[in-house]
Amino acid sequence: MYEGAVQDLIDELGRLPGIGPKSAQRLAFHILEADAEDMKRLAAAIVGVKERVKFCQICGNVSEQDTCAICRDPRRDPSVICVVEESKDVLAVERTRAYRGRYHVLGGAINPIAGIGPDQLRIRELLTRLNDEQVTEIILATNPNLEGEATSTYLARMLKSIGVKVTRLASGLPVGGDLEYADEVTLGRAFEGRRSAIG
Amino acid sequence: MYEGAVQDLIDELGRLPGIGPKSAQRLAFHILEADAEDMKRLAAAIVGVKERVKFCQICGNVSEQDTCAICRDPRRDPSVICVVEESKDVLAVERTRAYRGRYHVLGGAINPIAGIGPDQLRIRELLTRLNDEQVTEIILATNPNLEGEATSTYLARMLKSIGVKVTRLASGLPVGGDLEYADEVTLGRAFEGRRSAIG
Repeated sequence: MYEGAVQDLIDELGRLPGIGPKSAQRLAFHILEADAEDMKRLAAAIVGVKERVKFCQICGNVSEQDTCAICRDPRRDPSVICVVEESKDVLAVERTRAYRGRYHVLGGAINPIAGIGPDQLRIRELLTRLNDEQVTEIILATNPNLEGEATSTYLARMLKSIGVKVTRLASGLPVGGDLEYADEVTLGRAFEGRRSAIG
Repeated sequence: MYEGAVQDLIDELGRLPGIGPKSAQRLAFHILEADAEDMKRLAAAIVGVKERVKFCQICGNVSEQDTCAICRDPRRDPSVICVVEESKDVLAVERTRAYRGRYHVLGGAINPIAGIGPDQLRIRELLTRLNDEQVTEIILATNPNLEGEATSTYLARMLKSIGVKVTRLASGLPVGGDLEYADEVTLGRAFEGRRSAIG
């Protein structure tokens, strides 16, 4: 519909996840009218991330070096590994400031419909780490949805034979939420996981 | 929170309109995992649009040449000018296939709060065209909101003295809409603009 370069940009933007045709058009016109230096910086950031960022050889987290900042940090407890689906989940756990161990990024979750089985995830690498490192606990922190639960169940069964302690994040009511608005599965989990209130 | 290049990209994406911190993060990780060639093409499209696209010297529409495809087209009626706010509005009118005249893109609408007055719009250029071209009708097709209406009212007053025919797009019920769900201003306009139903 537009002339060459504008339509090219709308097409490329429209291929990004969550960017529909209207958003792509709006973004393209913003880029067209924005400061040229700013847009060169955006383009450079896109190319730069592809050139400079790789994945940590140990845990699979994003990193600009062969091993990520967390795996390199000697203050992190090497005896605990928190298993997450994606690099962004590492950040979410880090924000809590409650965890001082290391991570293992699976690179997704088991999803038969999307053709993702255990072999597509970094599970072999996890087993290698359990052989090489002195690990005493594995915390399964996959997403609390169908794929994440399936992945954790698979891992828990597999790790059982190895004899390492395997734990899972608690399910329950979100802090600050209303009981009234909790869905029944979450509320059910909160009952199952109830703890003694006195001491 | 992330290492250099990833955070750079999240920051740059987050500066785009309508992209919040969560979307910027999601897009950055998509870019990180996407095909390198695809992402080079995206970066090239961003730089390309800044380098190749300029604005038509006559109407202000986006164009890769000094004048846009519509102004260059001898089949377009030069006696009618449709005044719109933005280049994307040209496309919206073109999609109707109901208009065969030319356009004039103002580059926005009068918005005192945002500091946009008549001098920031391409109004001087419109007056020059009225002097140079044989124009018999100006169709004001600004957005049917506060800023668009203010702009059309301003233009209508200014053009009155020049003696050219000035029309405005009809306001009324959207085709395919429900009367029940029309807001009162739109319904009011539909009453004001009612036409004879018999021939």
